[in-house]
Amino acid sequence: MNAAVAEGAKTAGALDLIFRPASIAIVGLSRKAIDAPISVLTNLKAFGYQGEVYIINARLAADAGRKIYPSLADVPVPVDLAIVSLGRDQVLGALKDCVGAGIRAAIVITQGFADADAEGARLQAEMVALTKAHDLRILGPNTIGVANAFADFTSSFLEVHNEKLPIGIIAQSGLFMMGHNIIGNEPAGFGMAADVGNACDVDLTEILDFYGEEDAIRVIQCHIESIGRGRAFLASAARISRTKPIIALKAGTSQAGQVAVASHSGAAAGEGQVYRAAFEKAGVVAAESAEELRILTKAFATYAPPRGTRVAVMSFSGAACILAIDAIEAAGLSLAEFSDATHEALAEMFPDWLEIGNPLDVWYAVSGDFHARYPRVLELLLADEGIDAVFCLYPSFTLPKYAPYESARHIRDLAGRYPETPVLCWSYGLDLIGFTKEVECDGTAMVFPALESAATTLAKLARHGARRRAEPPLALPRLAADRKKAGEIIARAKEAGARYLFTEGLEILEAYGGNLAPWRVARSEQELESMADELSYPVCLKVVSADVVHKSDSGGIRLGIGDPGSLVESYRGLLADVAARAPGAQVAGVLVQAMAPKGKEVMIGARKDPVFGHCLVLGAGGVYTEVLDDHAFRLAPITEAEAHEMIGELKFARILDGVRGEAPAHKPSIVKALLQVSQLVTDHPEIEELDINPLIVTERDAVIVDARIIL
Amino acid sequence: MNAAVAEGAKTAGALDLIFRPASIAIVGLSRKAIDAPISVLTNLKAFGYQGEVYIINARLAADAGRKIYPSLADVPVPVDLAIVSLGRDQVLGALKDCVGAGIRAAIVITQGFADADAEGARLQAEMVALTKAHDLRILGPNTIGVANAFADFTSSFLEVHNEKLPIGIIAQSGLFMMGHNIIGNEPAGFGMAADVGNACDVDLTEILDFYGEEDAIRVIQCHIESIGRGRAFLASAARISRTKPIIALKAGTSQAGQVAVASHSGAAAGEGQVYRAAFEKAGVVAAESAEELRILTKAFATYAPPRGTRVAVMSFSGAACILAIDAIEAAGLSLAEFSDATHEALAEMFPDWLEIGNPLDVWYAVSGDFHARYPRVLELLLADEGIDAVFCLYPSFTLPKYAPYESARHIRDLAGRYPETPVLCWSYGLDLIGFTKEVECDGTAMVFPALESAATTLAKLARHGARRRAEPPLALPRLAADRKKAGEIIARAKEAGARYLFTEGLEILEAYGGNLAPWRVARSEQELESMADELSYPVCLKVVSADVVHKSDSGGIRLGIGDPGSLVESYRGLLADVAARAPGAQVAGVLVQAMAPKGKEVMIGARKDPVFGHCLVLGAGGVYTEVLDDHAFRLAPITEAEAHEMIGELKFARILDGVRGEAPAHKPSIVKALLQVSQLVTDHPEIEELDINPLIVTERDAVIVDARIIL
Repeated sequence: MNAAVAEGAKTAGALDLIFRPASIAIVGLSRKAIDAPISVLTNLKAFGYQGEVYIINARLAADAGRKIYPSLADVPVPVDLAIVSLGRDQVLGALKDCVGAGIRAAIVITQGFADADAEGARLQAEMVALTKAHDLRILGPNTIGVANAFADFTSSFLEVHNEKLPIGIIAQSGLFMMGHNIIGNEPAGFGMAADVGNACDVDLTEILDFYGEEDAIRVIQCHIESIGRGRAFLASAARISRTKPIIALKAGTSQAGQVAVASHSGAAAGEGQVYRAAFEKAGVVAAESAEELRILTKAFATYAPPRGTRVAVMSFSGAACILAIDAIEAAGLSLAEFSDATHEALAEMFPDWLEIGNPLDVWYAVSGDFHARYPRVLELLLADEGIDAVFCLYPSFTLPKYAPYESARHIRDLAGRYPETPVLCWSYGLDLIGFTKEVECDGTAMVFPALESAATTLAKLARHGARRRAEPPLALPRLAADRKKAGEIIARAKEAGARYLFTEGLEILEAYGGNLAPWRVARSEQELESMADELSYPVCLKVVSADVVHKSDSGGIRLGIGDPGSLVESYRGLLADVAARAPGAQVAGVLVQAMAPKGKEVMIGARKDPVFGHCLVLGAGGVYTEVLDDHAFRLAPITEAEAHEMIGELKFARILDGVRGEAPAHKPSIVKALLQVSQLVTDHPEIEELDINPLIVTERDAVIVDARIIL
Repeated sequence: MNAAVAEGAKTAGALDLIFRPASIAIVGLSRKAIDAPISVLTNLKAFGYQGEVYIINARLAADAGRKIYPSLADVPVPVDLAIVSLGRDQVLGALKDCVGAGIRAAIVITQGFADADAEGARLQAEMVALTKAHDLRILGPNTIGVANAFADFTSSFLEVHNEKLPIGIIAQSGLFMMGHNIIGNEPAGFGMAADVGNACDVDLTEILDFYGEEDAIRVIQCHIESIGRGRAFLASAARISRTKPIIALKAGTSQAGQVAVASHSGAAAGEGQVYRAAFEKAGVVAAESAEELRILTKAFATYAPPRGTRVAVMSFSGAACILAIDAIEAAGLSLAEFSDATHEALAEMFPDWLEIGNPLDVWYAVSGDFHARYPRVLELLLADEGIDAVFCLYPSFTLPKYAPYESARHIRDLAGRYPETPVLCWSYGLDLIGFTKEVECDGTAMVFPALESAATTLAKLARHGARRRAEPPLALPRLAADRKKAGEIIARAKEAGARYLFTEGLEILEAYGGNLAPWRVARSEQELESMADELSYPVCLKVVSADVVHKSDSGGIRLGIGDPGSLVESYRGLLADVAARAPGAQVAGVLVQAMAPKGKEVMIGARKDPVFGHCLVLGAGGVYTEVLDDHAFRLAPITEAEAHEMIGELKFARILDGVRGEAPAHKPSIVKALLQVSQLVTDHPEIEELDINPLIVTERDAVIVDARIIL
């Protein structure tokens, strides 16, 4: 990592220079770009930038009224920030000139570095070396830089939004700085934004910390393709998200980008899952798409988190009510019950034959005396303590302004007066744009593009609220474990060049308190015979060989051996099968293990992610593991509460609870096993992947039957 | 059903009168409504309706220039259509006046009938009786009626869209006639629309048939809360969807609305699943939300179905490319590979260091000479036979008209020239509305609100195309079955008042060729002892009692009995347990059954839906059935191809294929069992629910171990 990052004071200073420079030098502006519609100068003018602007271009003569200099050295005073958009071969020279001129911050617009080819990567590495050797920080390369409405500044040559909104954007593209006004839904956009580009120096986490300190920023939006410093991001995000919601989209989660992995945990915990676990850990709200990123960001800037998930629906259309119920149920929200007082007050406005309930079709109540009735109904719902949020479904007619149906103002005003109860609107009709603008102009309520997005947004607002209200997590549990012994086994295996640990893996798990089905290794038929009488049957046999990864595929397993007589026979059969199916495999011995009791099979695993460290996985065990996509993920180390959450997230949890009158499986034993694995991989970062599959969970305990560790 | 429906000529005539009346009478228009902004008269004027309009209102004096009559009888000539919006108590009188005046069609706007209370339901029943007794057809009640841009006519008092688009809407609400222009995305809307309201007479299927015959309608959109004539809908939809896409949303699928059911199949095949199976059967494209209904309708009106699912992406942003890949993969589409010719032609426009591939970041190629380069790149992709569709991701800047970035025109023109290769756009930026309007104005391309919706829409377009290209389904298979015997068993059971059939159910399945694990029933200990020596062990015992629905819950099951000695002991224990846990249960005997071989457990079931008849269910068997939501549904009767599709839709299919080197389960035996159940429930509509669980599938065959039939 960049050495400068550790120096807090210097860092903060650099981001100040990048986001609100008092003066800038633009290096590489062509003659054509000076008056072009697509130009940083055009944008600076549109922003009303008040600082000094020096244009550096050796081939341009000084223009009337413009400060044009042949080189940075010719600029009479030191400037705060250089914006560099030269051809890639000239960039390093310009940056060295910055150092020479005492410029401490630069934005490198130019692309074609690590984003392109080997030569580009080499040039970028030189750039990094420069920032380490000198007092120079770089944003980019391959970026349009920043925009800061609060300082009337942008480095972008593409037009970007400029509104003093309390939203800070961090993206790995200029995309998110250009298009946040999806069709009339004002206010949208941001107050500050940064495109980190290739992030050769200043990175996402550093900007996150910067926004964390900026009073003008209340909500932070992140578009993430990759992160360099995973653990630093987690620490910053966890701290900042307790006061400022962070909404994040992880892009690039498709299978094509997945790295090859050896274990089931590795296959299950793909990049998307690991990022999701990271967001969960840090209290970051995950968006599923660019569209949802935009909606969530706007919603978190508009609404305070609700107290709960009980929704009241008021509508002009019965059909819309039914659509709303479907959306509410699908998002895991519930329909509120009106209090008696609400019910009585509503009843006065409706005909007798119309049943009053939630959802509420308000047509009959309000069509007569709209301006009195519509706000009265809405206020009754907002004042009802059993209602946590209100869905307003409204037909936005293109009627003249004097028409009676101007509910937007009522919605806006009442939403402002009851800020703890979000009012989420959905509308249909020819004046949707007009209605939307009217509702949203105060920033107290929003019109959502679909009922489903209103419902899922509300669910995420409520979850964020619950998380903020919750106590900070307790200290991590510390289980009794023989850390030293496990370390020695790992060290020995590494020395021997072993990567797949089978019996060593079992020993390591035992060192961490793992409850294994009793096992011994027979290295010869003699050893087997000598232990035959001490075993409690039935037992099973498993081949021990560093060359056999999938034991069952190689005939290296024998189950249900009932007596000493068939033990030897099975042993011989196993060795013969392995010799035939995995010729040349070095067999170190045969593991003899007591058959596990009947129970529910789960799998517990871990995979070391290069960015975030170990990600724990819990899922159904046995053959179902690989087929049914039913897993829970958390980054290690986990608390006991997180272990319980993991179990609760599985569909398989219903099987653990016992179906058709079965006794429930012993969940505390699963929690214990999860915490043991969490501690094990945290203590021993050499472990790349770990699979316990199955862990057999009975009514009373849980037994590890098979496991392996990959270094 | 309405007797008139059978009379094709009369029906067609009535819908003609409703959709394009030459003259109308409005019954129940108040004085205030005559010049109000919200009035049918205002809307008729806006539509430019050319027919005669007679206003019926006894209390209004004749107004200057308006035809106002005290009653329908006073209208000098018979009119085509009456629009009735009186108070509910006066509606029947007005309809009788219609009959008297020779009016053959009426739209009843008034609400408060079957949608409200018992009195309303009674009034509606009288209305139905009236249509049956006379030559009068009714649309409604509780509707805003119809709109038909091609006849400049609407009956709606709320403002509705009016544009001659080739889209026909059928809805159970006026909602879908008011709001289809979501924010600038022109053209959207419809050419004809009908709100069927309570559908007391004219229903969804009748309007579907009408649109099927209308040349002006190319795409049909349905909003469905409930259907009366399920099988008629299926027949019409299956026929029409081969030439006109039908897009449908089933609203009201949340759990709250589910009826209580006794079997697992019943619980799994909820209303939403049955409708989904119905749509699948009839080639109807299912929308998941009102938002998707709108987008799909517009897309099917804009695009021809593509040849396949290979997508090329061209973008100005690398970040957008990554988002597009995620969306494409999630929707089950694939990234196209450029042909060598395309690759070479593209290479000429890019710098050497930039790798050319799909997705294609076009910035470098087009920024220099936009108007030549942008259309050239797009046309290269459209002309490439390995590319089935193109995603255009475009920044919609708010630049002046003369700026170089007016790609909308290029997109529109080229999309029109290559109609077989859909061009789907996504955009971001401050001029999204303007860009969208420009792209969409010819109806050759669309701008989607999200990449995900572009991708899922394309997937549905492609699937619809594949289905249209496929041969019509083959004739249904006819298996050997003793239909008569099964009918006799059912008749006997009904006579005895039995609802839950256990051993009778096994006999019925055997009559249809079902492969059951050998079984016999012992009605006494003596009977048991006499058969003890003939059995092939291990066997199991199951209590036979009409009073015991869940055998395992009542201790009525004994498994793995290995020899004649333990047989009697188990028998006694079973009876004692049942006596203790289900006191008073009448025990008819104990079923003795050979234990099934080891294999994969699946469940096959059927549930009779009141609308669509029997819905077949296939899922994982055993305890997993109730926990893992992994089912496939089809309406009976099914073809062999449908049976194969059902297996393929399960996640569990991977387990059937064999994981970790296991031999695959014998799928033809599952297909056979599905076809047997399909034929059984089709032959015997008395069967309400049927569960085979588990069907044990081995490498060679499949054995029914347990089953029950509910009448």
